[in-house]
Amino acid sequence: MATRTHETEITADPDVPLVRIIREFDAPPEKVFRAHTDQALLAQWNRPRDTEMRIDHFDCRTGGSYRFIHIRAGDEFGFRGCFHEVRPDELIVQTFTFEGFPDGVALERLVFEDLGDGRTRLSTTSLVDSFEGRDAFLASGMEEGVRRCYERLDELLAAAR
Amino acid sequence: MATRTHETEITADPDVPLVRIIREFDAPPEKVFRAHTDQALLAQWNRPRDTEMRIDHFDCRTGGSYRFIHIRAGDEFGFRGCFHEVRPDELIVQTFTFEGFPDGVALERLVFEDLGDGRTRLSTTSLVDSFEGRDAFLASGMEEGVRRCYERLDELLAAAR
Repeated sequence: MATRTHETEITADPDVPLVRIIREFDAPPEKVFRAHTDQALLAQWNRPRDTEMRIDHFDCRTGGSYRFIHIRAGDEFGFRGCFHEVRPDELIVQTFTFEGFPDGVALERLVFEDLGDGRTRLSTTSLVDSFEGRDAFLASGMEEGVRRCYERLDELLAAAR
Repeated sequence: MATRTHETEITADPDVPLVRIIREFDAPPEKVFRAHTDQALLAQWNRPRDTEMRIDHFDCRTGGSYRFIHIRAGDEFGFRGCFHEVRPDELIVQTFTFEGFPDGVALERLVFEDLGDGRTRLSTTSLVDSFEGRDAFLASGMEEGVRRCYERLDELLAAAR
C-alpha cells in the first residue's frame, strides 16, 4: 500500500491577488471530494501533524457554513466561512477567514477533475483583495502546511482503498 | 420631505479586479443597515423600478444564505450567495452570483460608516477573479442600476424618518 508522492504546485498569480494550488491524487473524484465534505474525514488530514482539529460546525452544502479550531500546545486557532456552492464530486466555492485576522476574507474555489484510472486533479484558487494580503498569506508558511496536509490526505485515501 | 441627491461614486480599482462603490445616505447606520438586512425593506429598493423582486430565502446572519429573483416582463433572473459575516450596523461580507452565469462569484464587502448628524457612508467593494469578469460586470449596465437602486433607497429612508 505504498503511496506515490505527487508534487503540490503552488503559484502566485502575476495579475490578480490569487494563489493557485494544483495537486493530483491517486483516488477518484468522489473519494477526494468526500474527504473534503465529510467532517470526520476532513479532521483526519486537514491539520498539521502536531495539531488537533475540533469542528465547531460543518454544514457542507450550498448555503451552509463551517467553523473549526486547530489546537496546538494549548493554543486555539479558529477558522470559519460559508459555502457559496457545493456541487457533488465537482466543485466547492467557499469563503475562508482565520479568526485571528477577522477582516481578511478569502474566496476559495476547489475544482475536482476526473483524470480517469481512479485519479483526480484538485485545483484550488484562493482570492483576496490585495497583493499585500496574498503575499502575507504565502509568507506565513502556508505552502509547507498545504504540502503536509495533502500528504496526510494521500495516506487517508490509500488506507480507504 | 425633500430628498437630497447624493452622488454614487463607482470606480474600477487599477490594481485588483475589484469595483468600489461609495454612497452617502441621510440616515443613521442602523437604518441603512436595516434596509439591507430586513427582507421586506430590501425588496422595496434593491431592484429596477420596472421589476418585481421575489425573495426565495434570506437568512441574513453570519453563516446564513440568500436567494432572490428579479421578475421583469415574465422573465426571471435569480441571484444567490452566502453571508460570510454580518456585523450589526457595521459590516456585511457576502458572496454574490447571478444564476445565469453560475461560475461567476463575487466577494462583496459592505461597510456602514457613521458620519454623525444622522448620516452614513456606505462603501461597497465587489471582488472577482479576473479583470475581464470585472470589466464585463461594469459593461453590463450595473452602474446605472446601482444609482437607481440607491435613489429608491433614499426615498425609502426619507419615508421612514
